[in-house]
Amino acid sequence: MVKKICIYDSTLRDGAQGEGISFTVADKLKITAKLDGLGVDYIEAGNPGSNPKDIEFFQRLKELKLKNAKLTAFGSTRRANVEVDKDANIMSLLSAETPSVAIFGKSWDFHVTDIIRTTLEENLCMIRDTVRYMKHKDKEVIYDAEHFFDGYKANPSYAIDTLEAALQSGADWITLCDTNGGTLPNEIRDIVKKVIGEINAPIGIHCHNDGGMAVANSIMAVIGGVTQVQGTMNGYGERCGNADLCTIIPNLEIKLKYRCLPEGALKELTAASRFISELANMTHYSGAPFVGHSAFAHKGGMHIDGVSKNPHSFEHIPPELVGNSRRFLMSEVSGRSTVLTSIQKVDPAITKDSEETYNIIAELKRLEHEGYQFEGAESSFELVIRRALGRYKKLFEVSDFKVISDEPWSNGNSATAIIKIWVNGVQELTASEGDGPVNALDIALRKALTVFYPQLNKMRLVDYKVRVLDTTTATAAKVRVHIESTDGERSWGTVGVSTNILEASWIALVDSIEYMLIKYMD
Amino acid sequence: MVKKICIYDSTLRDGAQGEGISFTVADKLKITAKLDGLGVDYIEAGNPGSNPKDIEFFQRLKELKLKNAKLTAFGSTRRANVEVDKDANIMSLLSAETPSVAIFGKSWDFHVTDIIRTTLEENLCMIRDTVRYMKHKDKEVIYDAEHFFDGYKANPSYAIDTLEAALQSGADWITLCDTNGGTLPNEIRDIVKKVIGEINAPIGIHCHNDGGMAVANSIMAVIGGVTQVQGTMNGYGERCGNADLCTIIPNLEIKLKYRCLPEGALKELTAASRFISELANMTHYSGAPFVGHSAFAHKGGMHIDGVSKNPHSFEHIPPELVGNSRRFLMSEVSGRSTVLTSIQKVDPAITKDSEETYNIIAELKRLEHEGYQFEGAESSFELVIRRALGRYKKLFEVSDFKVISDEPWSNGNSATAIIKIWVNGVQELTASEGDGPVNALDIALRKALTVFYPQLNKMRLVDYKVRVLDTTTATAAKVRVHIESTDGERSWGTVGVSTNILEASWIALVDSIEYMLIKYMD
Repeated sequence: MVKKICIYDSTLRDGAQGEGISFTVADKLKITAKLDGLGVDYIEAGNPGSNPKDIEFFQRLKELKLKNAKLTAFGSTRRANVEVDKDANIMSLLSAETPSVAIFGKSWDFHVTDIIRTTLEENLCMIRDTVRYMKHKDKEVIYDAEHFFDGYKANPSYAIDTLEAALQSGADWITLCDTNGGTLPNEIRDIVKKVIGEINAPIGIHCHNDGGMAVANSIMAVIGGVTQVQGTMNGYGERCGNADLCTIIPNLEIKLKYRCLPEGALKELTAASRFISELANMTHYSGAPFVGHSAFAHKGGMHIDGVSKNPHSFEHIPPELVGNSRRFLMSEVSGRSTVLTSIQKVDPAITKDSEETYNIIAELKRLEHEGYQFEGAESSFELVIRRALGRYKKLFEVSDFKVISDEPWSNGNSATAIIKIWVNGVQELTASEGDGPVNALDIALRKALTVFYPQLNKMRLVDYKVRVLDTTTATAAKVRVHIESTDGERSWGTVGVSTNILEASWIALVDSIEYMLIKYMD
Repeated sequence: MVKKICIYDSTLRDGAQGEGISFTVADKLKITAKLDGLGVDYIEAGNPGSNPKDIEFFQRLKELKLKNAKLTAFGSTRRANVEVDKDANIMSLLSAETPSVAIFGKSWDFHVTDIIRTTLEENLCMIRDTVRYMKHKDKEVIYDAEHFFDGYKANPSYAIDTLEAALQSGADWITLCDTNGGTLPNEIRDIVKKVIGEINAPIGIHCHNDGGMAVANSIMAVIGGVTQVQGTMNGYGERCGNADLCTIIPNLEIKLKYRCLPEGALKELTAASRFISELANMTHYSGAPFVGHSAFAHKGGMHIDGVSKNPHSFEHIPPELVGNSRRFLMSEVSGRSTVLTSIQKVDPAITKDSEETYNIIAELKRLEHEGYQFEGAESSFELVIRRALGRYKKLFEVSDFKVISDEPWSNGNSATAIIKIWVNGVQELTASEGDGPVNALDIALRKALTVFYPQLNKMRLVDYKVRVLDTTTATAAKVRVHIESTDGERSWGTVGVSTNILEASWIALVDSIEYMLIKYMD
């Protein structure tokens, strides 16, 4: 019998308090549908009392038919010395018309007396009145005990009194919050166990990551006996973020054999995590456990060798379980067997001990020493291999070009490129304007080549990145340019390095075009 | 009596196995000096057997006089069926000439039989021979028990035998490694306690973050009794990274009252973390516990209100303890008081409610919306303030310029800039060659200006950074250029944003020169 842990997602509420995060109503609707599809149990969708944008959102939400999740609106207990049905925030909370509400209240005596500045007894009344009122309105009530762990450490009996106040007024869940995120895993487990010994209710956990332990704390709370975990996708949230559900769910399901999501949903986790990071307009963290682009990326030579023999050797779980995949990175530490995999894609007859393999590794090391890096630029590396194996033909020659940039910039296109190329003895001279020298050169080169290779019309650049490698020589520093191109179906990455940013861009650009032409001819 | 936990940094070795990380020898020397200044106990500086670049580095390292840290070279036990003094990797390890070596060996029977494909007994001999040989060469030996936790779970008695083999051969430390990063905090603590009951040696912990719990696991191991913690700065490392020392150290020192760094060093942690991310060319993670830019950034209205009354209400520690600082986000009130500090440096008469303050905040918001960021570019922001207050005088006019870049690049200087400037009605027309368009323009502008302002001879650029802000439009994407300049005594940062990299560089360059001239005239 697999035990179920209830997953309570707060990406749209607590997650939205993260720096740099601001969801539109359209984003929120898409995220709600995605979370429901993934199969979380609760979606805490907003705080209608504090954020007027959320009221519109809750209206629009009614159009969505959710399959799995219960919608939840979040708000505070009534204010001190105000009747519950005269409290504006409480009224906003009701106007969200969700089946479930989360009510947070104070558990820490210091917060009662010094922050909201009322009496300990009035705080208990605020909890009782609000929970009772919401139950009277037929809501499921999740009572969030804010700062519970700090409160319990300061004054355990008062902290427990606040939980009893909520419970006796009808709360369906009690959630213990580590609001400031500074509690340690052993403390969490010990306190959770004590609370479970003292009160009789379904209990949840809500952790923040200020000590870097929100995930571990949530897991320890589950081991200690809680049955609901609150968190956010990708750990978004104020300061250092909330407990990351993308890490917690696979740990609970794979390591501890709990059920969190519906059967089969776990392998959708990586896609859901990346989808939400796109909508949040936050770069997806490549080192994120389970779902990150680097989570199963092997670089050390011995690691790659081990994983090739048996993936279990250097992977704690099979990446497919969470919808992620294994990658071998190309680098000087990655060793011969990785390089060989790439070589054999061009010529399967080459072996680990072929002279060509040694030559290509030597060339790889030389290029890396110059500042090249072929991670994400595997197409440039394939061209290195093709040149070394004599499987490369120059498809065009550039005899010369000039790029002229002028002040003032303000008239739109501020640079002009003139380029002369040769293809099979035929010359093409052309010119193009662009937004700066790199852009002008990019446009001119493709304009000239399209005369001979119309398939290049399909190609476009989707990403252009610049890294300064050695900053001590300032504007004469070496730069690495990384370009990602697509023909609408496939995409490929190339790289160029030079002290001249135009030259570095040029190298990556030419590689990108040559790679596409070779692939179309193969 | 405060208990000391030994801090073992592997940023330069295990950290360098992180995707996207590739340190130059110059970077490594700077990082070594920074780590030593911070006061870590061990610096694992490289793996001379697997990476030839590291041999040069260890030679150069001898020039540094370290105050605190012991340099350590990392390598494997001898290979199977090879005599230890005939093993090339062992010889490389010795050639590093470090006082201390870390030797890793296999603890997991599956790895012995299936990955390195030898017998369990030969593996024990490999451990014994290697440790004994290194002790014979007068090295301090840290024995890293790779995959110890997985090994212990699979075959506890063999796992312990490998530790005994190292210990009986003279190992000074035994480090228990969670190499695949999948062990849970309660397992770590339980196994650490059992090991401490079975062997008598100083014990260390080395965790990876694949389950998102490397920090918690390290802390639990310390609670369980280990006295050395291995990790990397910012958690750099293969896949999901290593245990992050920037999170572990403050947890141990502030929460658990251990001593990790020399007295007073903890407040250098944020600066060290960011310095190393700059050299690693990795964006510093703003949500990083303790040291992140957002770690003490408050956004929710109730949080800001609480922190204003008492910081303890929503902060688990005072940010100053780790050299970080509190920020209030998107709050007119808090925004104004921060900006006011900068304004009053230019004109102390301006108050919070002055019209100028409102105007400057509006301009700041407009510029930030365009992609400007003034952190580290306070000089550009000072110029914004001076313009708004009428405390700015244009010291030169650029009537126009042209920059011409030519193929081929190979003849050294590959771009020419022509520039015409006016100072007090006097024209100066000049030209300069440079390494690419940005460098040519930089040299030409300063050459022209030095005729009028000889003090510019003292100025030089020390840093030049390019960030692509919006990658979806490829080579026409918006870029932010950040320049750091010095006159030999002070240094200052400026910033420019444009879709044209040359224009963005130009804006930052002109700001930098204007700032220096204004300061010399003040």
